[in-house]
Amino acid sequence: MRALEGVLPDFHAIIPAGGVGSRLWPLSRAEAPKFLHDLTGSGHTLLRETWNRVLPLAGAEGIMVVTGHAHRAAVEEQLPDLTKANLVLESEPKESSAAIGLAAAILHSRNPEVIVGSFAADHVIADAERFRHTVAEAVAAARSGYITTIGIEPTEPATGFGYIRCGAPLAVDGAPHAHLVDRFVEKPDLDTATAYLESGDHLWNAGMFIARADQLLNQLAETQPELHTGLLDIAAAWDTPRRLEVVTAIWPLLSKIAIDYSVAEPAAAAGRLAVVRGDFAWDDVGDFSSLAKLLSGGRAGDLAILGEGARVLADSSSGVVVSQSGRLISLVGVSDIVVVDTPDALLVTTREHAQRVKSVVDAIRQAGRDDLL
Amino acid sequence: MRALEGVLPDFHAIIPAGGVGSRLWPLSRAEAPKFLHDLTGSGHTLLRETWNRVLPLAGAEGIMVVTGHAHRAAVEEQLPDLTKANLVLESEPKESSAAIGLAAAILHSRNPEVIVGSFAADHVIADAERFRHTVAEAVAAARSGYITTIGIEPTEPATGFGYIRCGAPLAVDGAPHAHLVDRFVEKPDLDTATAYLESGDHLWNAGMFIARADQLLNQLAETQPELHTGLLDIAAAWDTPRRLEVVTAIWPLLSKIAIDYSVAEPAAAAGRLAVVRGDFAWDDVGDFSSLAKLLSGGRAGDLAILGEGARVLADSSSGVVVSQSGRLISLVGVSDIVVVDTPDALLVTTREHAQRVKSVVDAIRQAGRDDLL
Repeated sequence: MRALEGVLPDFHAIIPAGGVGSRLWPLSRAEAPKFLHDLTGSGHTLLRETWNRVLPLAGAEGIMVVTGHAHRAAVEEQLPDLTKANLVLESEPKESSAAIGLAAAILHSRNPEVIVGSFAADHVIADAERFRHTVAEAVAAARSGYITTIGIEPTEPATGFGYIRCGAPLAVDGAPHAHLVDRFVEKPDLDTATAYLESGDHLWNAGMFIARADQLLNQLAETQPELHTGLLDIAAAWDTPRRLEVVTAIWPLLSKIAIDYSVAEPAAAAGRLAVVRGDFAWDDVGDFSSLAKLLSGGRAGDLAILGEGARVLADSSSGVVVSQSGRLISLVGVSDIVVVDTPDALLVTTREHAQRVKSVVDAIRQAGRDDLL
Repeated sequence: MRALEGVLPDFHAIIPAGGVGSRLWPLSRAEAPKFLHDLTGSGHTLLRETWNRVLPLAGAEGIMVVTGHAHRAAVEEQLPDLTKANLVLESEPKESSAAIGLAAAILHSRNPEVIVGSFAADHVIADAERFRHTVAEAVAAARSGYITTIGIEPTEPATGFGYIRCGAPLAVDGAPHAHLVDRFVEKPDLDTATAYLESGDHLWNAGMFIARADQLLNQLAETQPELHTGLLDIAAAWDTPRRLEVVTAIWPLLSKIAIDYSVAEPAAAAGRLAVVRGDFAWDDVGDFSSLAKLLSGGRAGDLAILGEGARVLADSSSGVVVSQSGRLISLVGVSDIVVVDTPDALLVTTREHAQRVKSVVDAIRQAGRDDLL
């Protein structure tokens, strides 16, 4: 694999840094959401890893981050090279269509030729160089007119991800692995996931979108005209003294809708969506079972430990321990266990039930203990 | 059942308060052993409960406590009515023969007619009035010349206790439930325990011994003559200015042996040991599985919680939580779990593996982290 040389012309990366990651509570909190954590033991937060991964493609001045006001200081600390012009602060969360759409609209107002790529701040990718080659293909497909996503070659019949069914291959210069998208499918059951894996034409939907900003905005205009108009009005005022006034007037009124529904699925239905196959290891680390798998390299029976200076004594135990309290953690005879030890909250569950951690978060909210969320 | 009236003549209770209770780590520690904990949620430590239980039988001046120097302050705080003459401090732990034997020898030197009863400081008994009636029978049997133990009617085929096989009934005034002891049997496997339960003539060995002090000492003289001589020498000096000098010279040399082997088994073999059936609920709370059973009243599927102001959120979980850290503890989908949350150490295991907690304690000791023990 030849190393890519220099940044991709007119390419800007958008990093939406939002979402608490409720299923990773009590590690992930409102004040310290998933993207501000080091979940791989690399020494870097997921946000910083995401920045590092796209930096060679876009350059520091070509990366825009969209996040909440509450995380401004943490984001600036993590990303000292992020330019002031490229930090977009949401006054309240409005889902991915508004977040990515606003970033695209601002970038488009600055450069009508811009190609944008959106990459979540809280995913884990093992092979950054392969990732960048795949993005370069996706940018080539986007440059030739397609709204483009990246689909991950599945390595197991995962039931926690949505899938993309590939259609006909495309003949795009610089994108030999690009196909049309036939359709998106929601998280399947195990039998269906197994059939998808065997079919060879189903890829994991990693939620990455690469497109000319004008085409992304045009697609939004078709399906969400009011949202589109609002975003364009904000973008027109963004680099002027009227920014605060316009944002204050319009942002609270915008629809909350995932970009999958406003852009990706309609584009797929219209034959305008391409997918590039990515054969790098990817995970959205959606729950502690994913985290256990990630940290143990997939070796069942291992006990994975995350935490600086973690002190863990384990006898015949497997699963994952997250240690943030400095206490000694002892496990005896517990299999596929999940123990998350933080200064003010402790979680004990199993990998099997890791998806249900959200129910605890709901219970805490109902109990009015937002200080613990 | 008629209430007992007044204290039993010449009766003294001995409460050996020793033993860390390693299988209850990290709740039980060297500095705060099991007997200094409230394991029932009664608001009293097990030591205080033991004192309260025997107080009507012996009176405050008839209760002697044997403990280590390290626990002197805690014991005095728990038992403000304990007289200075009745507090025996061990300079180093020497097992039950020496602890109980010294107490018996001191009491005998003060009153040759004394009948002593030894009751561990860290057991749990549900019905104090039934317990006292049983002890009164045992004192009657002791008064008539038998070294006497109390055997608990088994309610399940427990494999964690030793058993006593009853022999012929005795005709002792005031002790209608007294039998000769046929033999002691060690902790059985489940099949054997089931057979014991069905036999009707096997009782749990609760480690309680009631005897005239002179007979207990005579039995010790037969089986452990050096230990016996040492204890008598210390007892002779105990209430004199020579106490420290004699204790310092002799105590370190004494043999470590459980009173079961030095007194009970030889007395049984010689036909001198009686047993009185006790039909009160008793538990030695030997591990967290016992604690879970105790706190849930035996209802499997319950989640038992021990700890003042414990904050526990549980979803489809059972077992026991001990909360000492004030943190929120969340459990999701864990069955028969044991979670012990203390400020400097956390234990997670299952009721099935509760006996193996000692292995953690051993590992910590080997790691040189005695501060955590």
